[in-house]
Amino acid sequence: MAHAPRRMSIGMNILGHGGHASAWRYGEVSPTAHLDIGYYLEIARISERGKLDAIFLADGPAVIGDVSRGPTGRLEPTIVLTAIALATERLGVIATASTSYNDPYNLARRIASLDHVSRGRAAWNAVTTAGDAAALNFGLKGAPVHADRYARAEEFVDVVTQLWDSWEDDAIVGDRASGHYAHADKVHAIDHEGRHFCVKGPLTVPRSAQGRPVLVQAGASEGGKALAARSADAVFTTQTTLPDALAFYAEIKNRARAFGRHPDSIKIMPGLSTVIGSTEAEAKRRAQELDEIQGLDARIEQVAQRIGIPASELDPDKPLPWDRIGDLNLTMDGLRSTERGSHGFFAAQINLARRENLTVRELAGRIRSGHRLVVGSAEQIADTLAEWFLAGAADGFNIMPDMFPSGARIFCEEVVPLLQRRGLFRTEYEGTTLREHLGLERPESVFALRRGERAAAAG
Amino acid sequence: MAHAPRRMSIGMNILGHGGHASAWRYGEVSPTAHLDIGYYLEIARISERGKLDAIFLADGPAVIGDVSRGPTGRLEPTIVLTAIALATERLGVIATASTSYNDPYNLARRIASLDHVSRGRAAWNAVTTAGDAAALNFGLKGAPVHADRYARAEEFVDVVTQLWDSWEDDAIVGDRASGHYAHADKVHAIDHEGRHFCVKGPLTVPRSAQGRPVLVQAGASEGGKALAARSADAVFTTQTTLPDALAFYAEIKNRARAFGRHPDSIKIMPGLSTVIGSTEAEAKRRAQELDEIQGLDARIEQVAQRIGIPASELDPDKPLPWDRIGDLNLTMDGLRSTERGSHGFFAAQINLARRENLTVRELAGRIRSGHRLVVGSAEQIADTLAEWFLAGAADGFNIMPDMFPSGARIFCEEVVPLLQRRGLFRTEYEGTTLREHLGLERPESVFALRRGERAAAAG
Repeated sequence: MAHAPRRMSIGMNILGHGGHASAWRYGEVSPTAHLDIGYYLEIARISERGKLDAIFLADGPAVIGDVSRGPTGRLEPTIVLTAIALATERLGVIATASTSYNDPYNLARRIASLDHVSRGRAAWNAVTTAGDAAALNFGLKGAPVHADRYARAEEFVDVVTQLWDSWEDDAIVGDRASGHYAHADKVHAIDHEGRHFCVKGPLTVPRSAQGRPVLVQAGASEGGKALAARSADAVFTTQTTLPDALAFYAEIKNRARAFGRHPDSIKIMPGLSTVIGSTEAEAKRRAQELDEIQGLDARIEQVAQRIGIPASELDPDKPLPWDRIGDLNLTMDGLRSTERGSHGFFAAQINLARRENLTVRELAGRIRSGHRLVVGSAEQIADTLAEWFLAGAADGFNIMPDMFPSGARIFCEEVVPLLQRRGLFRTEYEGTTLREHLGLERPESVFALRRGERAAAAG
Repeated sequence: MAHAPRRMSIGMNILGHGGHASAWRYGEVSPTAHLDIGYYLEIARISERGKLDAIFLADGPAVIGDVSRGPTGRLEPTIVLTAIALATERLGVIATASTSYNDPYNLARRIASLDHVSRGRAAWNAVTTAGDAAALNFGLKGAPVHADRYARAEEFVDVVTQLWDSWEDDAIVGDRASGHYAHADKVHAIDHEGRHFCVKGPLTVPRSAQGRPVLVQAGASEGGKALAARSADAVFTTQTTLPDALAFYAEIKNRARAFGRHPDSIKIMPGLSTVIGSTEAEAKRRAQELDEIQGLDARIEQVAQRIGIPASELDPDKPLPWDRIGDLNLTMDGLRSTERGSHGFFAAQINLARRENLTVRELAGRIRSGHRLVVGSAEQIADTLAEWFLAGAADGFNIMPDMFPSGARIFCEEVVPLLQRRGLFRTEYEGTTLREHLGLERPESVFALRRGERAAAAG
């Protein structure tokens, strides 16, 4: 595959009122804007004018956090993204959904339907969903442990991929005169019988304009990396320092190679939380204003939750209590975290704090929504994106502005033109599907591939 | 509740290329139109111009039928209906989803999200899904038997209703200055622990403009009727003769009364398959043309499948083999059908054939998609709708035209004006929500009701 010139991909992550927990109190939009489809459509249109690759929606099937202190509710992503697909023409739509709390047949069908409605712009971001809150909504007493979640995820992704491919591209004939609708031998039962699932298939939905939906994986644990290297088209990840990001990037590309994949066939996209101003000073004022609304205690609490140590045991002006956290490597392989928690977010905090010897208060100002935070002018944001991209630490980024819609607008109107001027980002969409935006080839159906292999063996 | 004048409700049921199995061969639209969102949007816009109550989408999570002989695939209904909601302003959107092959938390959330995106126009049509094909996609060896499906359905509906109500209407404060977002005591865990489900809640989605989505029940078995009388806002049903429809209507209203419900709070909507022409002769030509494309064998096969007797054992020019079918009552209470099959569709065939002493061939021409078929001019269609409505056999109808989009257009442009002239159908939407269209009151949250009861007891 030749991609010249290499250009970065950018997703816009609509996280409630914005990445900052106090965004809803700033007053830019209504306190219930996150339940109003008009709010999402406005951000989507801004993003499409900015030629971004996609809108990204995170998800978990549970109310997380204290409902008295901020918006906790979330509309279901495939519903919101269907609306966005209708209101846009090129923008991709990436829906997070849990492998722990869905059935593969239903989920495959829903995402494939979104792929048809958007005419080939859909992706599924597969997550295993840490935490007990979701488990309690699905008949469990608590979240399955990490290894079990990933074993299920791996099988889940296999089943979904086969279902997406169960109608070969040329299965439908549609001959009105004879009444011959489809080649029955090109519509496949998948007959999957595994440890977690038995699924006969085929799917009720044929392949789409981009073959099948883009598969995104978000999770930087060992299980997540293995799954990504084997199956994912893109990885949303959490590295907070350039050295960690370089290491992660190289590791995933190498592991993909080991599965016989071309390294360009898997895109690495770290998250980046942004606070952007016309000048650095303006950005800092904006950040400070939001931080003051939130208060120091709440910011320390966010750190505490990610590392799994009570806030009462953290001193804002001292480093993290390393004796409590244990003897960690700075790479993610040596991670220790609760078996039920997120490895990636844990590592993102720990690695940054140790590498730069930060106090708890400083750490709170450098991480947001579990991701690296940059406060600065449009030039400074463009600089850091360019640096990571050109260094080989990222193929693109998942952007989490502090507040919507202004944070998305500033990014698209001020950062994007700088990237375009440097030749690092598209000035027009060149394709119509999300795979084309991301520089991914349209995959053959796994069943068509097997047919080809059988034919080659027979020939 | 005062509803003067009483007006009928009308849903448009988009069933593939149309209710006639050969609609795709007629050539009005592409053979893959059922996978093209533009097709659905066109029918929706026609329906909204006709002031219809809603678009209805049937569903089952499996490929049913022979893929070589016609379109079998289906996009997922909540995705299609979200797109329709975006493209329309008043039209309701009714999504069928199975209680046997979904989790209540996920489904409640998806329909509630659709209700927000449509600003109060969503409904869930709860079905238990007969047949083994779906079961095989969800780890089962075959469909659960009828009684088990309905036991699960009843608990499923209870859980979903509580989740929909888990945020009281006035739960959200959204006070930016103090940071007080919601009254925690008005956001309820449902703490459901039942035979089929354990669900903690609350839902991630607050209540909507119409309180909660409309609950539709489709199924005329004993289990279905019990569920409808207790919980449903509307019943989609299958009666094929006026006496059966009158009996069904009276029974459901009486059973609802026995649950302490006002009979107007549950709407009875039989399905009606239509072939409409400018004259009766033109309609008959249109019907004959489609029948000839399909061929007699295929039409006999459809009868055979509904009654569970092989087509090879049916003589087109003789009555149904009553000795094989057994000693049936003409009401549905005495139904015998396969434990795994649909009682309602079975009864619809049997009752019509016996009451009118039809041959198999005649029966095939009087039933379509399991529902009563009327072939005639716009006047004749309006007459039968008026007759059933005024006789007290129906509050409204679910219309299944032979072909789309023409069948929907003829209905909306020719039948609707006749009904309007007779004062039987609205000439403008009077409300904005589906509950308002259907003449249903906005329900209080069950949790708010309990709070009121506690306050009354304490006072």
